[in-house]
Amino acid sequence: MLHKQYYVEQAKVDRLVSGKNRKSSFYNGIYDRYEYPVLTREFAPVHWRYDLDEETNPYFMERLGINAVMNSGAICLNGTYYLVVRVEGNDRKSFFAVAESKTGIDGFRFWDEPVVLPDTCPEETNVYDMRLTLHEDGWIYGLFCSESKDAENPDLSAAVAAAGIVRTKDFKTWERLDNLKTLQSPQQRNVALHPEFVDGKYAFYTRPMDGFIETGSGGGIGFGLCEDIRHAVIGEERIISRRIYHTLTESKNGAGAPPIRGKKCWIHIAHGVRNTAAGLRYVLYAFGTDLKDPSRVVAEPSGVFLVPLGEERVGDVSNVVFTNGAAVRENGDVYIYYASCDTRLHVAATTIDRLEEYLFSTPKDPLRSADCVKQRCEMIRRNLALLKG
Amino acid sequence: MLHKQYYVEQAKVDRLVSGKNRKSSFYNGIYDRYEYPVLTREFAPVHWRYDLDEETNPYFMERLGINAVMNSGAICLNGTYYLVVRVEGNDRKSFFAVAESKTGIDGFRFWDEPVVLPDTCPEETNVYDMRLTLHEDGWIYGLFCSESKDAENPDLSAAVAAAGIVRTKDFKTWERLDNLKTLQSPQQRNVALHPEFVDGKYAFYTRPMDGFIETGSGGGIGFGLCEDIRHAVIGEERIISRRIYHTLTESKNGAGAPPIRGKKCWIHIAHGVRNTAAGLRYVLYAFGTDLKDPSRVVAEPSGVFLVPLGEERVGDVSNVVFTNGAAVRENGDVYIYYASCDTRLHVAATTIDRLEEYLFSTPKDPLRSADCVKQRCEMIRRNLALLKG
Repeated sequence: MLHKQYYVEQAKVDRLVSGKNRKSSFYNGIYDRYEYPVLTREFAPVHWRYDLDEETNPYFMERLGINAVMNSGAICLNGTYYLVVRVEGNDRKSFFAVAESKTGIDGFRFWDEPVVLPDTCPEETNVYDMRLTLHEDGWIYGLFCSESKDAENPDLSAAVAAAGIVRTKDFKTWERLDNLKTLQSPQQRNVALHPEFVDGKYAFYTRPMDGFIETGSGGGIGFGLCEDIRHAVIGEERIISRRIYHTLTESKNGAGAPPIRGKKCWIHIAHGVRNTAAGLRYVLYAFGTDLKDPSRVVAEPSGVFLVPLGEERVGDVSNVVFTNGAAVRENGDVYIYYASCDTRLHVAATTIDRLEEYLFSTPKDPLRSADCVKQRCEMIRRNLALLKG
Repeated sequence: MLHKQYYVEQAKVDRLVSGKNRKSSFYNGIYDRYEYPVLTREFAPVHWRYDLDEETNPYFMERLGINAVMNSGAICLNGTYYLVVRVEGNDRKSFFAVAESKTGIDGFRFWDEPVVLPDTCPEETNVYDMRLTLHEDGWIYGLFCSESKDAENPDLSAAVAAAGIVRTKDFKTWERLDNLKTLQSPQQRNVALHPEFVDGKYAFYTRPMDGFIETGSGGGIGFGLCEDIRHAVIGEERIISRRIYHTLTESKNGAGAPPIRGKKCWIHIAHGVRNTAAGLRYVLYAFGTDLKDPSRVVAEPSGVFLVPLGEERVGDVSNVVFTNGAAVRENGDVYIYYASCDTRLHVAATTIDRLEEYLFSTPKDPLRSADCVKQRCEMIRRNLALLKG
C-alpha cells in the first residue's frame, strides 16, 4: 500500500516544478540572470528516493537520497528544452537523467526513470558532465567523463578520466560507442563534439591533461579530428584556448557547452580556474572561432563572462560555476545552463546577437595591470567627454 | 549619443553612494562594526564599466566589468577620508582608485578616473594592496605589492612579489621610486612604511618570505631601516611579530595598516593566517611597539582582534578579512578599513584610547590550553565573586 506521506512529499516537488521563475535585478547587458535555480536536489521525484510501500517502509524513510543536481547537457528540439542532468546520489556516484520544460527557464520536470547507459567499461566507477551535440549526421551525441580508479597509483583518490561517447535520437535508447582515444594525451575530461563535420571529419574539443585534478604543465582547450566516431581516435590535438598567467585560466580551463553557430563565428562558453587561499575558483569565459575553421580563434574578450554571485557562491564545492550545456531556439534565444558549487542548476538567458556583440566588442585582455588601466582610462575619457557633451 | 540605460545604471550607483551606514548590533567594547560595506563592486562608476555611447554600445553591454573592490590604503586629511582602493577588473588584474568621503563610514565616491601609476617595471603583471603613510618628510607614500611571473618556474601560477613604492601630495600626481630591495629576502609582500624617521632613517615593516603563497620556514613581520627612500635597500630585517604554533599566525602573518601613533605605543593592526580543511583563514590581530623604538614590542594581547562574521564570511576568497589601511582623525577616532573575502570593503570604528586599552589590558596568550583555561577561570572567579556581591 502506498504510504500516505508520499502525497505530502510529492506535493512539495510538484510545487517546485510548477513555480514560475523571473529575471533577477542583475544587469550587465550581456545576459539575464534568474531569481531561482532551474533544478535543485528537491526537484528529484519522490519515487526515486523513497520506497513508497508502507509495508516495507513504515517510517517513509529515504532509501536512496539525491545529494545534488548539476552540470547538464542541454538542447532545444521542436520548442521543448531537454536537459541531460548530472544527478549525484547520496552515494557520491552520479548518473544521468532527462528533465524537460516548455519555457527553458522554469517547469523542468524529470522523466519517470533515469537514463541507463550501456555498461561497457567494467573499470568505470563514475560518469558525469554530458555535453549534448545535435550533429549534422543526424544523431544526438552525448560526450561525458568516464572515471576509473587509477590502479597503478597507491593514492586512493587517484583516478583516470576518459571521454565516453553515446548517441541517441530520443533520449530513451542510447548506443554506447568506444571511449575517445587521444594519442597525445593519456587522459581526457571536458570533451565536447563540434556539431558539424570539419574537412569531412568529426571534430572534438579536448583537454589534454597530465594528471587528474592538476592539469600539469600543459593544458588548455584542444582541438582534434577523427574519421570514425564509433572508434574515435585523435592523433594531433592543437591548443586553441590557452592557460595564461594572472588570468582566469591560470590553473586550468576546459570546454563548456558545445559551440553555438552564430552569424559571425562559433560561440564557445568555457570555464577557467584559478587558485585562491580558499581553494580553486571556477568561472565562465567566452571566445569565438571561425565559422569555416572552428580551430581558429577570432574573438577573445577580456575577463570573466559569468561568476558565482549571492547564493551561488556556497555549496558542496564552493566558489564554482560550471556549464556544459546551452540550448538555442530557432529565434536566436540562448539559454545557458550553469551549475553553482556542484550543487544546483541555474539559467542565464541571452541571444546569439548579444553573445556576438559581447565577443567582438569587448576589448582583449592586455595582460598587465598598467596596460589594463590604460585600456580602461581610454574608455573612461571617451565617456567623460560624452557626459560633458 | 548617451545611451539612456546609463541613467538607470548610474542611479543604482548614486543610491548606493548616498545610502547612510549605521552601527550594527555587534558589541565587544573594542570597536563598532557597521551594517553595510563602505564599498562594493556596485559602487564603481558606470563610465568605468560601460561604453556609454549608444552608437558603439547599442545593447548597453558591460565592456570592462569590475569584479571586486577590496584592500585599501586609508588616510584622513583636513577632515576628509581618502581611500586608495584595490579595484579588481573582470580580467583579474587590479588597479588603484581614490574614493573619498566626509564621514569615513559611508558616502565613499570614486573619483572620475582611476590612479595611473608610472609604468616603470615592464615585467610587472599586477599591483595591489597599497599602504598609505603620511611621512614626517612631508610626502604621502604608497607601498604596494608588485607581482610578476616567476620566469624560472615552469608552474604557470608561480609569481614573484616585490614591494613597489610611490609618493604623492595630492593622490593625482604619483612619483614612482625604485622597488624595495631586501638583501636577506628574495621576495616581499605586505610591506608598510613607518610614519617617522627612526635613527634618522626610513623604517619599513617587511615580510621576509622564501616562496610566494607559502612563506616557507622563516617568516613573521620584519623591521628594517634604509637611508635613501628613492633607492631603498634594507640590509638586516629583524622579526618583531613571529609566527607561533597553534595561534592565529601559525601559517603566516604580515603587517596591515601602517602603525598609528598612540599615547603609549605605536598601534599595529596586522593579519594572521592559519590553514583549515577549507583553505587559509585570514584574521586580524593587534600589537603595540615602543614609541621610541618601534621595533620593540610592548603589548601583545591574546588572540584575534577581528574575524569575518555573517555575510563577511563568503566571497571570491572566503574566510578572509584583511586590512591595509586605517584613518585617524585629530580627535583620536580611528576607522579601520577591512576587506572581506577579497570582495568588498568594510569599516570598524574605534578610538586611540580604546585601542590602547585593548592592547595593554587584554591578557597575553599563554599558548597552552591548560594555561588558557586557568587564565580564563581566574577572571571567571573574580567575576562570580563580584556577581554574588
